[in-house]
Amino acid sequence: MVFEVATAAWLKASAERVDAAILESFKHLSVPAQGLKEAMLYAATGGGKRIRPLLVYATASLTGRSLDDVPGIDACAVAVELFHTYSLVHDDMPCMDNDDLRRGRATVHKAYNESTALLVGDALQTMALGLIADSSMADSQKIRIISNFTRAGGLEGMAGGQAIDLESVGQPLTRQALETMHRLKTGALLRSSVQMGGLAIDLSDEDLNRLDQFASSLGLLFQVVDDILDATADSQTLGKTAGKDAAANKPTFVSLMGLSAAKELANNLHQEAIASLGIWGENAQLLRLIADKVLHRES
Amino acid sequence: MVFEVATAAWLKASAERVDAAILESFKHLSVPAQGLKEAMLYAATGGGKRIRPLLVYATASLTGRSLDDVPGIDACAVAVELFHTYSLVHDDMPCMDNDDLRRGRATVHKAYNESTALLVGDALQTMALGLIADSSMADSQKIRIISNFTRAGGLEGMAGGQAIDLESVGQPLTRQALETMHRLKTGALLRSSVQMGGLAIDLSDEDLNRLDQFASSLGLLFQVVDDILDATADSQTLGKTAGKDAAANKPTFVSLMGLSAAKELANNLHQEAIASLGIWGENAQLLRLIADKVLHRES
Repeated sequence: MVFEVATAAWLKASAERVDAAILESFKHLSVPAQGLKEAMLYAATGGGKRIRPLLVYATASLTGRSLDDVPGIDACAVAVELFHTYSLVHDDMPCMDNDDLRRGRATVHKAYNESTALLVGDALQTMALGLIADSSMADSQKIRIISNFTRAGGLEGMAGGQAIDLESVGQPLTRQALETMHRLKTGALLRSSVQMGGLAIDLSDEDLNRLDQFASSLGLLFQVVDDILDATADSQTLGKTAGKDAAANKPTFVSLMGLSAAKELANNLHQEAIASLGIWGENAQLLRLIADKVLHRES
Repeated sequence: MVFEVATAAWLKASAERVDAAILESFKHLSVPAQGLKEAMLYAATGGGKRIRPLLVYATASLTGRSLDDVPGIDACAVAVELFHTYSLVHDDMPCMDNDDLRRGRATVHKAYNESTALLVGDALQTMALGLIADSSMADSQKIRIISNFTRAGGLEGMAGGQAIDLESVGQPLTRQALETMHRLKTGALLRSSVQMGGLAIDLSDEDLNRLDQFASSLGLLFQVVDDILDATADSQTLGKTAGKDAAANKPTFVSLMGLSAAKELANNLHQEAIASLGIWGENAQLLRLIADKVLHRES
């Protein structure tokens, strides 16, 4: 039973599972542009928390089915991670956050160059959506997933949140506006990860909506903790440049509320997330584990 | 009947049709990031030849069906144009071709800024794929189209061709290598446009393969003519910076073969394309019209 391994071991095994699936997904590509493929692999295999694939796997495990019996579940996990990676690669570029360090390594535009980083992000996005289309799910599932995923990733979701983020640098921002920005920028894709897992095991719309409550709280929790870590951790622990939000004069939950209130908010969001899982009882152990990890992470 | 209007009037009407469909596709978006939406519209509504939507429409007209009776055909036309537009916006950026002029207007990073141009391209790509997923075609058609489209647009297609293009600046390149690069960079998406139109009207695999021969010749023709125009036309006629390939020391069909041999190649490719349409006789009038236009265009 999957629930017996709902420990740190499950997190590790699942991260390894998606890492292997990422490598596998590149193997089948017939590619004249080896340089671009290599740079895409560099971006996609640099570790990271793999929180989005973990959400896909944990949600798909909600009914106790083994992941090996859920067609296309690895394609979903890889797709959401590659899509997230595309956004990181572009976000790190000089015209955006201009960051040299990501996941403890040189960012793509530093390890290669800017034009390669641009193409790496572009092609990772395309690949992510192609993987779902080419997966072994039913066509109807694939379409619902691609529809949800593209809405979450585009103008109405992640990309829109990025745009608001850029516009807000140096601006006074209310807590409400900051929350809206993060619900788009980070929250949308985390929610989509949970929906993917649920759609892959054909959950009812009612269940999908319940899970969306969980994912929505979790998404905001993720960002609040990010802001707390940015203000309190060092770059080596984070694997990326610490204190950069303050340096860039970006509004954060910490800068708006103070550190102690931000920590209280994080605890409240964690409790909200856990409460949304109530009806699943023991079956939601893995999702609770992820929520705990998001609250208590150090990087 | 559609064939009676197979003239310049059809080209104009079809370009207007996709322009209207592009505007319509933005109307339904609920968007907190108005600035990004505006910049996406700026990029997507700047005119252009609309050659990819024309190919979608002309192919979907092959069996004489009215476009109004082909579910999802406007979504396909808009999707391929938005995807193409994303590639132009990124291609114009300073780290790529660093171009100030596109379709006779300021490029997106000049009219707005670099970070906006990056996000505009990213979000246009996402939107393009979402439009197909949300269209009124059958799920099985959508999936075949998305699968073909993502293969054509990604590492194995357009993005891969872009990478080879960047690597080849200042390098000696054989005619064969130049052709491979262009078959990916420009050809793949033109071929995908034709496949979309054919899949939308449920053509047989045999017919789809025949059409792919046409599209493959047309794609290369398109690029050879591009190179001829870059060497012979002025910026005002082109609506983009002329002579930039020579200035950037990029290999072109003209620089490798000379102008006169490049013109002969263009004529041969045009004849090949037309010959591939043989079995469709009069029904292929619109596709022939597009091939003529690609050969004889002045911008």
